[in-house]
Amino acid sequence: MAQQDRAIRTRQAILEAAGEVFAECGYAATRISDVYQRCGVTKGAFYFHFTSKAELAQAVLDEQVADQIRYFAPPQEQGAPKLQEWVDVTLLVAHRLTFDRMLQGSIRLAVDQGHDVIDRKVPYQAWIEVSTRLLGEAQELGELVPGIDVATVSEAAVGAFTGVQLLSEIMTNRADVEERIAVLYDLMARSLARPEVYARLDITAERGKALSRGAALHSSV
Amino acid sequence: MAQQDRAIRTRQAILEAAGEVFAECGYAATRISDVYQRCGVTKGAFYFHFTSKAELAQAVLDEQVADQIRYFAPPQEQGAPKLQEWVDVTLLVAHRLTFDRMLQGSIRLAVDQGHDVIDRKVPYQAWIEVSTRLLGEAQELGELVPGIDVATVSEAAVGAFTGVQLLSEIMTNRADVEERIAVLYDLMARSLARPEVYARLDITAERGKALSRGAALHSSV
Repeated sequence: MAQQDRAIRTRQAILEAAGEVFAECGYAATRISDVYQRCGVTKGAFYFHFTSKAELAQAVLDEQVADQIRYFAPPQEQGAPKLQEWVDVTLLVAHRLTFDRMLQGSIRLAVDQGHDVIDRKVPYQAWIEVSTRLLGEAQELGELVPGIDVATVSEAAVGAFTGVQLLSEIMTNRADVEERIAVLYDLMARSLARPEVYARLDITAERGKALSRGAALHSSV
Repeated sequence: MAQQDRAIRTRQAILEAAGEVFAECGYAATRISDVYQRCGVTKGAFYFHFTSKAELAQAVLDEQVADQIRYFAPPQEQGAPKLQEWVDVTLLVAHRLTFDRMLQGSIRLAVDQGHDVIDRKVPYQAWIEVSTRLLGEAQELGELVPGIDVATVSEAAVGAFTGVQLLSEIMTNRADVEERIAVLYDLMARSLARPEVYARLDITAERGKALSRGAALHSSV
Protein backbone atom coordinates (compact mmCIF):
# COMPACT_ATOMS: atom_id res chain seq x y z
CA MET A 1 0.00 0.00 0.00
CA ALA A 2 2.84 2.38 0.92
CA GLN A 3 4.57 1.31 -2.29
CA GLN A 4 1.43 2.04 -4.29
CA ASP A 5 1.14 5.49 -2.67
CA ARG A 6 4.73 6.23 -3.59
CA ALA A 7 4.10 5.16 -7.20
CA ILE A 8 1.12 7.51 -7.40
CA ARG A 9 3.19 10.37 -5.96
CA THR A 10 6.05 9.68 -8.36
CA ARG A 11 3.70 9.63 -11.33
CA GLN A 12 2.17 12.94 -10.22
CA ALA A 13 5.64 14.49 -9.75
CA ILE A 14 6.60 13.41 -13.27
CA LEU A 15 3.39 14.87 -14.72
CA GLU A 16 3.95 18.19 -12.94
CA ALA A 17 7.57 18.42 -14.12
CA ALA A 18 6.46 17.48 -17.63
CA GLY A 19 3.88 20.27 -17.60
CA GLU A 20 6.57 22.75 -16.64
CA VAL A 21 9.00 21.62 -19.33
CA PHE A 22 6.29 21.46 -22.01
CA ALA A 23 5.20 24.99 -21.00
CA GLU A 24 8.75 26.30 -21.43
CA CYS A 25 9.94 24.35 -24.47
CA GLY A 26 6.93 22.99 -26.33
CA TYR A 27 6.58 19.37 -27.38
CA ALA A 28 9.34 19.12 -30.00
CA ALA A 29 12.12 20.66 -27.89
CA THR A 30 11.28 18.77 -24.66
CA ARG A 31 13.66 15.98 -23.70
CA ILE A 32 12.58 13.18 -21.36
CA SER A 33 15.78 13.62 -19.34
CA ASP A 34 14.83 17.26 -18.64
CA VAL A 35 11.59 16.00 -17.13
CA TYR A 36 12.92 13.29 -14.81
CA GLN A 37 15.90 15.38 -13.74
CA ARG A 38 13.63 18.26 -12.82
CA CYS A 39 11.58 16.17 -10.40
CA GLY A 40 14.52 14.16 -9.09
CA VAL A 41 13.26 10.84 -10.43
CA THR A 42 15.61 8.23 -11.86
CA LYS A 43 15.49 7.24 -15.50
CA GLY A 44 14.40 3.77 -14.43
CA ALA A 45 11.54 5.10 -12.30
CA PHE A 46 10.46 7.36 -15.16
CA TYR A 47 10.26 4.48 -17.65
CA PHE A 48 8.29 2.41 -15.14
CA HIS A 49 5.52 5.03 -15.57
CA PHE A 50 5.90 6.26 -19.17
CA THR A 51 7.46 4.59 -22.17
CA SER A 52 7.78 7.61 -24.47
CA LYS A 53 7.51 11.40 -24.74
CA ALA A 54 4.25 11.00 -26.67
CA GLU A 55 2.73 8.88 -23.88
CA LEU A 56 3.85 11.44 -21.31
CA ALA A 57 2.38 14.36 -23.26
CA GLN A 58 -0.87 12.45 -23.77
CA ALA A 59 -1.15 11.85 -20.01
CA VAL A 60 -0.61 15.57 -19.31
CA LEU A 61 -3.38 16.38 -21.80
CA ASP A 62 -5.73 13.59 -20.70
CA GLU A 63 -5.57 14.57 -17.03
CA GLN A 64 -5.91 18.34 -17.52
CA VAL A 65 -9.60 18.47 -16.68
CA ALA A 66 -9.58 15.96 -13.79
CA ASP A 67 -6.56 17.77 -12.39
CA GLN A 68 -8.25 21.17 -12.51
CA ILE A 69 -11.70 20.08 -11.39
CA ARG A 70 -10.33 18.90 -8.04
CA TYR A 71 -9.56 22.54 -7.21
CA PHE A 72 -13.18 23.50 -7.77
CA ALA A 73 -15.68 23.71 -4.95
CA PRO A 74 -19.11 25.02 -5.98
CA PRO A 75 -19.81 28.45 -4.46
CA GLN A 76 -21.80 28.47 -1.24
CA GLU A 77 -23.72 31.72 -1.81
CA GLN A 78 -27.38 31.29 -0.85
CA GLY A 79 -29.65 31.25 -3.87
CA ALA A 80 -26.91 31.71 -6.48
CA PRO A 81 -28.02 30.57 -9.95
CA LYS A 82 -26.65 27.28 -11.31
CA LEU A 83 -25.21 29.36 -14.14
CA GLN A 84 -22.82 30.89 -11.58
CA GLU A 85 -21.13 27.48 -11.37
CA TRP A 86 -20.63 27.44 -15.16
CA VAL A 87 -18.96 30.86 -14.86
CA ASP A 88 -16.97 29.92 -11.77
CA VAL A 89 -15.32 26.77 -13.14
CA THR A 90 -13.92 28.91 -15.93
CA LEU A 91 -12.89 31.90 -13.78
CA LEU A 92 -11.01 29.51 -11.49
CA VAL A 93 -9.15 27.95 -14.43
CA ALA A 94 -8.33 31.46 -15.73
CA HIS A 95 -6.88 32.30 -12.32
CA ARG A 96 -4.90 29.07 -12.14
CA LEU A 97 -3.49 29.78 -15.62
CA THR A 98 -1.53 32.67 -14.10
CA PHE A 99 0.63 30.33 -12.01
CA ASP A 100 -0.12 26.60 -12.57
CA ARG A 101 2.78 25.43 -14.75
CA MET A 102 1.25 22.02 -15.40
CA LEU A 103 -1.92 23.66 -16.70
CA GLN A 104 0.13 26.09 -18.82
CA GLY A 105 2.07 23.16 -20.28
CA SER A 106 -0.99 21.13 -21.06
CA ILE A 107 -2.67 24.11 -22.74
CA ARG A 108 0.45 24.69 -24.81
CA LEU A 109 0.29 21.04 -25.94
CA ALA A 110 -3.40 21.50 -26.79
CA VAL A 111 -2.80 24.68 -28.84
CA ASP A 112 0.47 24.10 -30.73
CA GLN A 113 0.33 22.25 -34.01
CA GLY A 114 2.98 19.94 -35.37
CA HIS A 115 2.97 16.96 -33.02
CA ASP A 116 0.54 14.54 -34.62
CA VAL A 117 1.56 11.67 -32.33
CA ILE A 118 -0.68 13.03 -29.57
CA ASP A 119 -4.46 13.41 -29.61
CA ARG A 120 -5.24 17.05 -28.78
CA LYS A 121 -9.02 16.49 -28.77
CA VAL A 122 -9.14 14.94 -25.27
CA PRO A 123 -9.00 18.03 -23.01
CA TYR A 124 -11.32 20.03 -25.29
CA GLN A 125 -13.91 17.24 -25.25
CA ALA A 126 -13.65 16.93 -21.48
CA TRP A 127 -14.16 20.69 -20.95
CA ILE A 128 -17.06 20.66 -23.43
CA GLU A 129 -18.67 17.88 -21.35
CA VAL A 130 -18.23 19.87 -18.12
CA SER A 131 -19.77 22.97 -19.72
CA THR A 132 -22.62 21.02 -21.34
CA ARG A 133 -23.55 19.38 -18.03
CA LEU A 134 -23.59 22.68 -16.08
CA LEU A 135 -25.44 24.62 -18.80
CA GLY A 136 -27.91 21.74 -19.09
CA GLU A 137 -28.61 21.92 -15.35
CA ALA A 138 -29.08 25.71 -15.58
CA GLN A 139 -31.46 25.14 -18.49
CA GLU A 140 -33.53 22.59 -16.56
CA LEU A 141 -33.86 25.13 -13.77
CA GLY A 142 -35.26 27.64 -16.28
CA GLU A 143 -32.29 29.99 -16.02
CA LEU A 144 -31.59 30.25 -19.77
CA VAL A 145 -33.48 32.09 -22.48
CA PRO A 146 -35.48 29.74 -24.73
CA GLY A 147 -33.90 27.94 -27.67
CA ILE A 148 -30.32 27.48 -26.38
CA ASP A 149 -28.51 24.36 -27.63
CA VAL A 150 -26.25 23.82 -24.62
CA ALA A 151 -23.87 21.40 -26.38
CA THR A 152 -23.29 23.76 -29.32
CA VAL A 153 -22.85 26.76 -27.03
CA SER A 154 -20.39 24.75 -24.92
CA GLU A 155 -18.26 24.04 -27.98
CA ALA A 156 -18.19 27.77 -28.75
CA ALA A 157 -17.39 28.67 -25.13
CA VAL A 158 -14.48 26.22 -24.85
CA GLY A 159 -13.05 27.35 -28.18
CA ALA A 160 -13.47 31.00 -27.24
CA PHE A 161 -11.79 30.47 -23.85
CA THR A 162 -8.82 28.83 -25.59
CA GLY A 163 -8.37 31.75 -27.95
CA VAL A 164 -8.83 34.49 -25.37
CA GLN A 165 -6.21 32.98 -23.04
CA LEU A 166 -3.92 32.62 -26.08
CA LEU A 167 -4.35 36.28 -26.97
CA SER A 168 -3.62 37.22 -23.34
CA GLU A 169 -0.47 35.10 -23.44
CA ILE A 170 0.67 36.84 -26.65
CA MET A 171 -0.22 40.37 -25.52
CA THR A 172 0.70 40.36 -21.81
CA ASN A 173 2.20 36.94 -20.99
CA ARG A 174 -1.18 36.17 -19.33
CA ALA A 175 -1.00 39.10 -16.88
CA ASP A 176 -4.57 40.05 -17.88
CA VAL A 177 -6.03 36.60 -18.56
CA GLU A 178 -8.53 36.84 -15.67
CA GLU A 179 -9.89 40.20 -16.93
CA ARG A 180 -10.14 38.95 -20.52
CA ILE A 181 -11.95 35.74 -19.56
CA ALA A 182 -14.35 37.70 -17.35
CA VAL A 183 -15.20 39.98 -20.32
CA LEU A 184 -15.80 36.95 -22.55
CA TYR A 185 -17.99 35.11 -20.05
CA ASP A 186 -19.94 38.26 -19.26
CA LEU A 187 -20.68 38.64 -22.99
CA MET A 188 -21.78 35.02 -23.32
CA ALA A 189 -23.78 34.92 -20.08
CA ARG A 190 -25.72 38.05 -21.04
CA SER A 191 -26.74 36.24 -24.22
CA LEU A 192 -27.64 32.94 -22.52
CA ALA A 193 -29.28 33.90 -19.23
CA ARG A 194 -32.72 35.28 -18.56
CA PRO A 195 -32.23 38.96 -17.61
CA GLU A 196 -33.22 38.38 -13.97
CA VAL A 197 -30.69 35.51 -13.74
CA TYR A 198 -27.94 37.50 -15.48
CA ALA A 199 -28.49 40.33 -12.95
CA ARG A 200 -27.62 37.90 -10.10
CA LEU A 201 -24.36 36.62 -11.65
CA ASP A 202 -20.93 37.69 -10.39
CA ILE A 203 -18.53 37.69 -13.34
CA THR A 204 -15.44 39.60 -12.30
CA ALA A 205 -11.71 39.15 -12.79
CA GLU A 206 -11.14 38.87 -9.02
CA ARG A 207 -13.61 36.04 -8.49
CA GLY A 208 -11.26 33.26 -9.67
CA LYS A 209 -8.73 34.11 -6.99
CA ALA A 210 -11.42 34.25 -4.29
CA LEU A 211 -12.75 30.85 -5.43
CA SER A 212 -9.22 29.49 -5.29
CA ARG A 213 -8.94 30.49 -1.62
CA GLY A 214 -12.40 29.04 -0.98
CA ALA A 215 -11.42 25.75 -2.60
CA ALA A 216 -8.24 25.61 -0.53
CA LEU A 217 -10.26 26.10 2.66
CA HIS A 218 -12.83 23.62 1.46
CA SER A 219 -10.33 20.87 0.71
CA SER A 220 -8.49 21.36 4.02
CA VAL A 221 -11.67 20.59 5.97
CA MET B 1 7.15 50.36 -64.33
CA ALA B 2 6.77 46.90 -65.87
CA GLN B 3 9.78 45.85 -63.82
CA GLN B 4 8.15 47.24 -60.68
CA ASP B 5 4.93 45.36 -61.47
CA ARG B 6 6.91 42.17 -61.87
CA ALA B 7 8.64 42.74 -58.51
CA ILE B 8 5.25 43.20 -56.81
CA ARG B 9 3.94 40.02 -58.43
CA THR B 10 7.06 38.07 -57.42
CA ARG B 11 6.81 39.28 -53.84
CA GLN B 12 3.14 38.26 -53.73
CA ALA B 13 3.93 34.83 -55.22
CA ILE B 14 6.60 34.31 -52.54
CA LEU B 15 4.18 35.33 -49.76
CA GLU B 16 1.51 32.94 -51.04
CA ALA B 17 3.96 30.04 -51.30
CA ALA B 18 5.29 30.89 -47.83
CA GLY B 19 1.75 30.81 -46.41
CA GLU B 20 1.25 27.34 -47.90
CA VAL B 21 4.53 25.97 -46.56
CA PHE B 22 4.02 27.53 -43.10
CA ALA B 23 0.50 26.04 -43.03
CA GLU B 24 1.88 22.58 -43.77
CA CYS B 25 5.12 22.58 -41.77
CA GLY B 26 4.96 25.34 -39.15
CA TYR B 27 7.71 27.88 -38.67
CA ALA B 28 10.52 25.68 -37.35
CA ALA B 29 10.30 23.01 -40.05
CA THR B 30 9.91 25.41 -43.00
CA ARG B 31 12.95 25.82 -45.26
CA ILE B 32 13.40 28.89 -47.44
CA SER B 33 14.26 26.67 -50.42
CA ASP B 34 10.85 24.96 -50.09
CA VAL B 35 9.22 28.36 -50.46
CA TYR B 36 11.05 29.66 -53.54
CA GLN B 37 10.97 26.30 -55.27
CA ARG B 38 7.22 26.07 -54.77
CA CYS B 39 6.54 29.36 -56.54
CA GLY B 40 9.23 28.89 -59.22
CA VAL B 41 11.33 31.84 -58.07
CA THR B 42 15.14 31.73 -58.10
CA LYS B 43 17.13 31.90 -54.89
CA GLY B 44 18.52 35.26 -56.00
CA ALA B 45 15.08 36.70 -56.66
CA PHE B 46 13.90 35.43 -53.28
CA TYR B 47 16.75 37.14 -51.41
CA PHE B 48 16.08 40.38 -53.30
CA HIS B 49 12.74 40.46 -51.43
CA PHE B 50 13.43 38.76 -48.08
CA THR B 51 16.70 38.31 -46.21
CA SER B 52 15.61 35.61 -43.73
CA LYS B 53 12.87 33.17 -42.74
CA ALA B 54 11.92 35.43 -39.82
CA GLU B 55 11.46 38.41 -42.15
CA LEU B 56 9.36 36.27 -44.51
CA ALA B 57 7.14 34.99 -41.67
CA GLN B 58 6.73 38.50 -40.30
CA ALA B 59 5.58 39.74 -43.73
CA VAL B 60 3.01 36.91 -43.96
CA LEU B 61 1.71 37.90 -40.50
CA ASP B 62 1.84 41.66 -41.09
CA GLU B 63 -0.13 41.47 -44.32
CA GLN B 64 -2.80 39.05 -43.13
CA VAL B 65 -5.43 41.70 -42.48
CA ALA B 66 -4.74 43.90 -45.51
CA ASP B 67 -4.73 40.75 -47.64
CA GLN B 68 -8.12 39.57 -46.31
CA ILE B 69 -9.83 42.95 -46.22
CA ARG B 70 -9.44 43.37 -49.98
CA TYR B 71 -11.85 40.42 -50.44
CA PHE B 72 -14.51 42.21 -48.42
CA ALA B 73 -17.22 44.30 -50.02
CA PRO B 74 -19.80 45.65 -47.55
CA PRO B 75 -23.20 44.01 -48.10
CA GLN B 76 -25.63 45.90 -50.28
CA GLU B 77 -28.86 44.96 -48.47
CA GLN B 78 -31.09 48.03 -48.06
CA GLY B 79 -31.30 49.15 -44.45
CA ALA B 80 -29.02 46.45 -43.01
CA PRO B 81 -27.57 47.46 -39.63
CA LYS B 82 -23.91 48.53 -39.45
CA LEU B 83 -23.43 45.60 -37.07
CA GLN B 84 -24.05 43.30 -40.05
CA GLU B 85 -20.72 44.49 -41.45
CA TRP B 86 -18.97 43.54 -38.20
CA VAL B 87 -20.48 40.06 -38.51
CA ASP B 88 -19.79 39.82 -42.25
CA VAL B 89 -16.06 40.60 -42.16
CA THR B 90 -15.68 37.65 -39.78
CA LEU B 91 -17.98 35.24 -41.62
CA LEU B 92 -16.03 35.95 -44.81
CA VAL B 93 -12.70 35.21 -43.10
CA ALA B 94 -14.19 32.00 -41.65
CA HIS B 95 -15.22 30.96 -45.17
CA ARG B 96 -11.80 31.83 -46.61
CA LEU B 97 -10.14 29.76 -43.86
CA THR B 98 -11.59 26.65 -45.51
CA PHE B 99 -9.41 27.10 -48.62
CA ASP B 100 -7.02 30.10 -48.43
CA ARG B 101 -3.62 28.49 -47.74
CA MET B 102 -1.88 31.82 -47.14
CA LEU B 103 -4.47 32.70 -44.48
CA GLN B 104 -4.15 29.22 -42.92
CA GLY B 105 -0.37 29.62 -42.80
CA SER B 106 -0.46 33.06 -41.27
CA ILE B 107 -2.95 31.91 -38.61
CA ARG B 108 -0.70 28.96 -37.80
CA LEU B 109 2.20 31.40 -37.31
CA ALA B 110 -0.02 33.55 -35.08
CA VAL B 111 -1.15 30.59 -32.92
CA ASP B 112 1.94 28.37 -32.53
CA GLN B 113 4.40 29.22 -29.80
CA GLY B 114 8.14 28.73 -29.95
CA HIS B 115 9.36 31.16 -32.59
CA ASP B 116 10.19 34.28 -30.60
CA VAL B 117 11.97 35.91 -33.54
CA ILE B 118 8.64 37.02 -34.98
CA ASP B 119 6.11 39.42 -33.48
CA ARG B 120 2.76 37.60 -33.32
CA LYS B 121 0.87 40.63 -32.00
CA VAL B 122 0.57 42.38 -35.38
CA PRO B 123 -2.36 40.53 -36.99
CA TYR B 124 -4.32 40.41 -33.71
CA GLN B 125 -3.92 44.16 -33.24
CA ALA B 126 -4.97 44.82 -36.82
CA TRP B 127 -8.12 42.67 -36.49
CA ILE B 128 -8.92 44.32 -33.14
CA GLU B 129 -8.72 47.71 -34.88
CA VAL B 130 -11.07 46.57 -37.66
CA SER B 131 -13.57 45.27 -35.11
CA THR B 132 -13.30 48.35 -32.88
CA ARG B 133 -13.95 50.67 -35.81
CA LEU B 134 -17.03 48.76 -37.03
CA LEU B 135 -18.48 48.27 -33.53
CA GLY B 136 -17.83 51.96 -32.82
CA GLU B 137 -19.78 52.94 -35.93
CA ALA B 138 -22.65 50.64 -34.91
CA GLN B 139 -22.58 52.21 -31.46
CA GLU B 140 -22.75 55.76 -32.88
CA LEU B 141 -25.80 54.70 -34.87
CA GLY B 142 -27.45 53.55 -31.63
CA GLU B 143 -27.45 49.87 -32.61
CA LEU B 144 -25.79 48.57 -29.40
CA VAL B 145 -27.19 48.17 -25.90
CA PRO B 146 -25.89 50.84 -23.49
CA GLY B 147 -22.57 50.49 -21.71
CA ILE B 148 -20.57 48.50 -24.30
CA ASP B 149 -16.81 49.15 -24.37
CA VAL B 150 -16.20 48.42 -28.06
CA ALA B 151 -12.40 48.11 -27.75
CA THR B 152 -12.61 45.58 -24.90
CA VAL B 153 -15.32 43.60 -26.65
CA SER B 154 -13.23 43.59 -29.84
CA GLU B 155 -10.29 42.07 -27.96
CA ALA B 156 -12.60 39.34 -26.68
CA ALA B 157 -14.12 38.76 -30.13
CA VAL B 158 -10.75 38.43 -31.90
CA GLY B 159 -9.44 36.10 -29.19
CA ALA B 160 -12.61 34.03 -29.29
CA PHE B 161 -12.50 33.77 -33.11
CA THR B 162 -8.91 32.52 -32.92
CA GLY B 163 -9.81 29.81 -30.44
CA VAL B 164 -13.00 28.67 -32.17
CA GLN B 165 -11.23 28.26 -35.52
CA LEU B 166 -8.45 26.36 -33.69
CA LEU B 167 -10.97 24.00 -32.10
CA SER B 168 -12.56 23.45 -35.52
CA GLU B 169 -9.12 22.66 -36.97
CA ILE B 170 -8.46 20.13 -34.20
CA MET B 171 -11.91 18.51 -34.30
CA THR B 172 -12.76 18.49 -38.02
CA ASN B 173 -9.76 19.92 -39.92
CA ARG B 174 -11.87 23.10 -40.27
CA ALA B 175 -14.75 21.37 -42.10
CA ASP B 176 -17.19 23.07 -39.69
CA VAL B 177 -15.37 26.37 -39.08
CA GLU B 178 -18.14 28.44 -40.72
CA GLU B 179 -20.84 26.87 -38.52
CA ARG B 180 -18.77 27.31 -35.35
CA ILE B 181 -17.94 30.97 -36.07
CA ALA B 182 -21.61 31.68 -36.87
CA VAL B 183 -22.60 30.21 -33.46
CA LEU B 184 -19.98 32.34 -31.70
CA TYR B 185 -20.94 35.58 -33.45
CA ASP B 186 -24.63 34.92 -32.92
CA LEU B 187 -23.95 34.55 -29.17
CA MET B 188 -21.93 37.78 -29.06
CA ALA B 189 -24.26 39.80 -31.28
CA ARG B 190 -27.29 38.84 -29.15
CA SER B 191 -25.44 40.28 -26.17
CA LEU B 192 -24.28 43.48 -27.93
CA ALA B 193 -27.18 44.51 -30.17
CA ARG B 194 -30.47 46.09 -29.24
CA PRO B 195 -33.14 43.37 -29.69
CA GLU B 196 -34.68 45.09 -32.74
CA VAL B 197 -31.22 45.30 -34.36
CA TYR B 198 -30.36 41.70 -33.48
CA ALA B 199 -33.62 40.57 -35.11
CA ARG B 200 -32.46 42.09 -38.42
CA LEU B 201 -29.02 40.42 -38.46
CA ASP B 202 -28.18 37.49 -40.73
CA ILE B 203 -25.61 35.29 -38.95
CA THR B 204 -25.52 31.97 -40.76
CA ALA B 205 -22.77 29.58 -41.78
CA GLU B 206 -23.65 29.99 -45.46
CA ARG B 207 -23.32 33.77 -45.50
CA GLY B 208 -19.51 33.85 -45.76
CA LYS B 209 -19.60 31.91 -49.02
CA ALA B 210 -22.32 34.17 -50.44
CA LEU B 211 -20.30 37.25 -49.46
CA SER B 212 -17.29 35.72 -51.15
CA ARG B 213 -19.19 35.46 -54.43
CA GLY B 214 -20.46 39.02 -53.96
CA ALA B 215 -16.95 40.32 -53.36
CA ALA B 216 -15.69 38.49 -56.44
CA LEU B 217 -18.40 40.12 -58.56
CA HIS B 218 -17.73 43.47 -56.91
CA SER B 219 -14.00 43.43 -57.55
CA SER B 220 -14.43 42.42 -61.20
CA VAL B 221 -16.46 45.60 -61.94
